[in-house]
Amino acid sequence: MIDSIPMTKDTPLDHPIHELLASRWSSRAIDPAKSIPKDVMMQVLEAARWAPSSRNEQPWRFIIFTKDKPAELEKAHSTLSEGNAWAKHAPVLLLSVAKLFFDLNGKENRHAVHDLGLATENLILQAAALGLVTHQMAGFDHERARALFQIPQGFEPMTMIVLANPGDLLQLDAKSQEKEKAARTRLLISEFTFDCTWGSTISS
Amino acid sequence: MIDSIPMTKDTPLDHPIHELLASRWSSRAIDPAKSIPKDVMMQVLEAARWAPSSRNEQPWRFIIFTKDKPAELEKAHSTLSEGNAWAKHAPVLLLSVAKLFFDLNGKENRHAVHDLGLATENLILQAAALGLVTHQMAGFDHERARALFQIPQGFEPMTMIVLANPGDLLQLDAKSQEKEKAARTRLLISEFTFDCTWGSTISS
Repeated sequence: MIDSIPMTKDTPLDHPIHELLASRWSSRAIDPAKSIPKDVMMQVLEAARWAPSSRNEQPWRFIIFTKDKPAELEKAHSTLSEGNAWAKHAPVLLLSVAKLFFDLNGKENRHAVHDLGLATENLILQAAALGLVTHQMAGFDHERARALFQIPQGFEPMTMIVLANPGDLLQLDAKSQEKEKAARTRLLISEFTFDCTWGSTISS
Repeated sequence: MIDSIPMTKDTPLDHPIHELLASRWSSRAIDPAKSIPKDVMMQVLEAARWAPSSRNEQPWRFIIFTKDKPAELEKAHSTLSEGNAWAKHAPVLLLSVAKLFFDLNGKENRHAVHDLGLATENLILQAAALGLVTHQMAGFDHERARALFQIPQGFEPMTMIVLANPGDLLQLDAKSQEKEKAARTRLLISEFTFDCTWGSTISS
């Protein structure tokens, strides 16, 4: 049965890009039984570590939840929106958090959330390089997360990230299966790129 | 002379990561004469295109300035802070811009700037894969950029990005040369990662 094997997804490229960047996608089909070894977790975090950031502030923080501490993982589950219930099968959740102020001078870092994004892309690409599934979720209660995990003021929870081994599509509910099978879609380059001035399109 | 060849930089890894992620760094040593071919530019933008985003909103925009339109490139130069004067030698500058509101419902997208970061990391990694230099700069006058390039309200200019071929370190001023030669430094994983609760360190 073709559906029962881990899915890869075709990326309809208009221009060639590095295989690692083309292969990454946000699957929901995860193996609920297989855990993430510690050394693998460290490699994924190491990739985040080497992202660039404004003034090398490195305004990224990650809170990690694993099945080794089921009560804590359950708390992370309790923050997820209903649509993200499938993510409760993941062996690992990571909560990404942005550090909003510079250490140096206490001033607001207007690139904090942006730079957390840079680091998180590295993290999920390293996971893809290791054959793992990642899936970032905006749909969680961030104020509940702040309270449960004691995130201080000046730091902002941003995404809950599934980290898992690829699994069987058929374990998902019908709606999630449809999402898995849907074609990847993106704007054209000419729709998000401008030539020198806003609204001035480039030819792609 | 060892200094006259394009520099690579050692990344002191604590854990192995994919070569592409380890090799990327923000050099300033660029070739002022060599341009970026159109097909290369498209590959770099294509990589940004395939980043993930909240609700697949793709809240990333890029305004491109090249030596083909010197008066426009000069306007981009006029926004740079003094410390980023070296970047005026680049054949290409890209201004990254976040789209702050969802198309669907007009609501604020709290992940807009974050997701621009995801896309921008893809962009600079694709450039690294092609042997190119990128360097993101926070140091530019973003309100001047908004006025010059007619960036509408609801969109926020975030970073100015150098895209160039690698060049000779010796073309840089002494201060920039020192920065190029300095070792890459990062927090330890144990300094930005927590075990289930804020402040609870993990062992790396």
